[in-house]
Amino acid sequence: MSDDLLNAQNDLARALVEARLLLPSGVPGLFGRGTVLEDVIERIDALVVRTAEGDGARAERWRFPPILPRALLEKSEYLSAMPQLAGSVHAFDGTVQDHQKLLARVHGGEDYGDLQKQTDVALVPAACYPVYPIVASDGPLREGGRLVDVFSYCFRHEPSPDPARLQSFRMHEYVRIAPDADDARAFRDGWIDRGLLLLRGLGLAAERAPANDPFFGRAGKLLAVNQRDQELKFELVCPITSAEKPTALASANYHQDHFGSLFGIKNADGTTAHTACVGFGVERVAIALFKTHGIDVAAWPVDVRARLWAP
Amino acid sequence: MSDDLLNAQNDLARALVEARLLLPSGVPGLFGRGTVLEDVIERIDALVVRTAEGDGARAERWRFPPILPRALLEKSEYLSAMPQLAGSVHAFDGTVQDHQKLLARVHGGEDYGDLQKQTDVALVPAACYPVYPIVASDGPLREGGRLVDVFSYCFRHEPSPDPARLQSFRMHEYVRIAPDADDARAFRDGWIDRGLLLLRGLGLAAERAPANDPFFGRAGKLLAVNQRDQELKFELVCPITSAEKPTALASANYHQDHFGSLFGIKNADGTTAHTACVGFGVERVAIALFKTHGIDVAAWPVDVRARLWAP
Repeated sequence: MSDDLLNAQNDLARALVEARLLLPSGVPGLFGRGTVLEDVIERIDALVVRTAEGDGARAERWRFPPILPRALLEKSEYLSAMPQLAGSVHAFDGTVQDHQKLLARVHGGEDYGDLQKQTDVALVPAACYPVYPIVASDGPLREGGRLVDVFSYCFRHEPSPDPARLQSFRMHEYVRIAPDADDARAFRDGWIDRGLLLLRGLGLAAERAPANDPFFGRAGKLLAVNQRDQELKFELVCPITSAEKPTALASANYHQDHFGSLFGIKNADGTTAHTACVGFGVERVAIALFKTHGIDVAAWPVDVRARLWAP
Repeated sequence: MSDDLLNAQNDLARALVEARLLLPSGVPGLFGRGTVLEDVIERIDALVVRTAEGDGARAERWRFPPILPRALLEKSEYLSAMPQLAGSVHAFDGTVQDHQKLLARVHGGEDYGDLQKQTDVALVPAACYPVYPIVASDGPLREGGRLVDVFSYCFRHEPSPDPARLQSFRMHEYVRIAPDADDARAFRDGWIDRGLLLLRGLGLAAERAPANDPFFGRAGKLLAVNQRDQELKFELVCPITSAEKPTALASANYHQDHFGSLFGIKNADGTTAHTACVGFGVERVAIALFKTHGIDVAAWPVDVRARLWAP
């Protein structure tokens, strides 16, 4: 990382912490949200919901906890593509003697991971993952497809000094389970436009960019090329700590029949459903606002305040 | 577990799943929340907030993600008391060759926990934990103490067929950092009364009971006796799947100077602060309502509906 970038990240992090917008935990990328930051996040989220509803589409509103079945993470192929970002949950399951050993390690400041076992759960990497098996279990896709609204904490193991790159953050997603490719792609494209309008309406210099997922290893390079060549996923980016490397605030993703095939989501005629999703990283949008308009919310442009605090 | 209790749990779980209140994941104790359940949970939470504000007390509103620094979990002594419930987060940090090994294990359905390393983060066991180090870092406690409002997903590794015993659930807590013992104890006692009124006002057969924390092992038996003898923690319980073993919907806990000493929270005169907290398990309150008043929200008693959906 260049010194300039690191300094820009540290300057922003320091300002956010000093204003008690972020409450530091001592671990990079892990913060509490202060009163004012959380209020701004809630207003951003309400704007995302108003934008979705303005579209006239009625979504099923499901809420999932921040953990999901480990088997689902495995089935989704996330561990093939981005194993370094995934978190799995381990727990102690031993005897009183094992417990003594564990405590000795804790007190000695040693690793005790080998005294804990892999559980059946892992951390949610993206808010839409729990949706697909439930839709599949409902049987043939109803005519016209489905639209699901999800909002959950997601985990990415990427400790960073960048206050816009959190290990645990909330993603508000709309997931379209569509009968065919055209429908899914149109959903994604519509949200690219709608998302840009939403972000620019808040005074953010948002642009559309091809996705830039951090796929792992040599095979990952092919996945990245494929994702770009097929124009499957786009990000809505905005400069936060770097003008050259703007940060993704949202993404809109056409999955082809990837999840439809994996989970067996089929139309009544037996063809496989296509899916797409749009996700807003609400903490990132908030931090982009503080970076763009300043730390003092009361001094933000009148139209931005009006749009966020609309009744 | 008795057959009767297991059947009661399964009957309730089945009814909640059939009504799409709970969305099953395939893992015991892990569910999505359907549209109606989430709406009820939000209304319960709003009632908790109104009750707190009706008290006239103004809380600092902080929000924390579902993970916390592993060092904080260790310092808090949670791993001494309830190691079996704690979850720590492990992540892959290897080479391309290690990744091949990991994927082979995944595809073979084998454990791959040893190919992941303990990270610096763990799952939040109770919503108040992240509060104490932040209050301590602010220096001497301001006169009159502090009151913090937190609300987060908590994790307990206790897979169970009981739909009221979730592995991941939300807890709304008010944390009192008090100058002295009397203040902290009065806060806790006030909330026992207020909490019982709140729950009974929703038609729930709530009672106060001494806490019954599942402390681990032989040493844990002493902790449990101590907790009861000193009357430190009380639960507000209500029958859900068993009349003999009612479920805790909320708890009110006086910590003495446990957290004050551990984290170094001091008054201006150098004495150690005492703390107390009250926490509502919002999913549990909701499930108690469905068990008590039936699966159809529209058929709930008029006064219960009015209290929840108050403007």
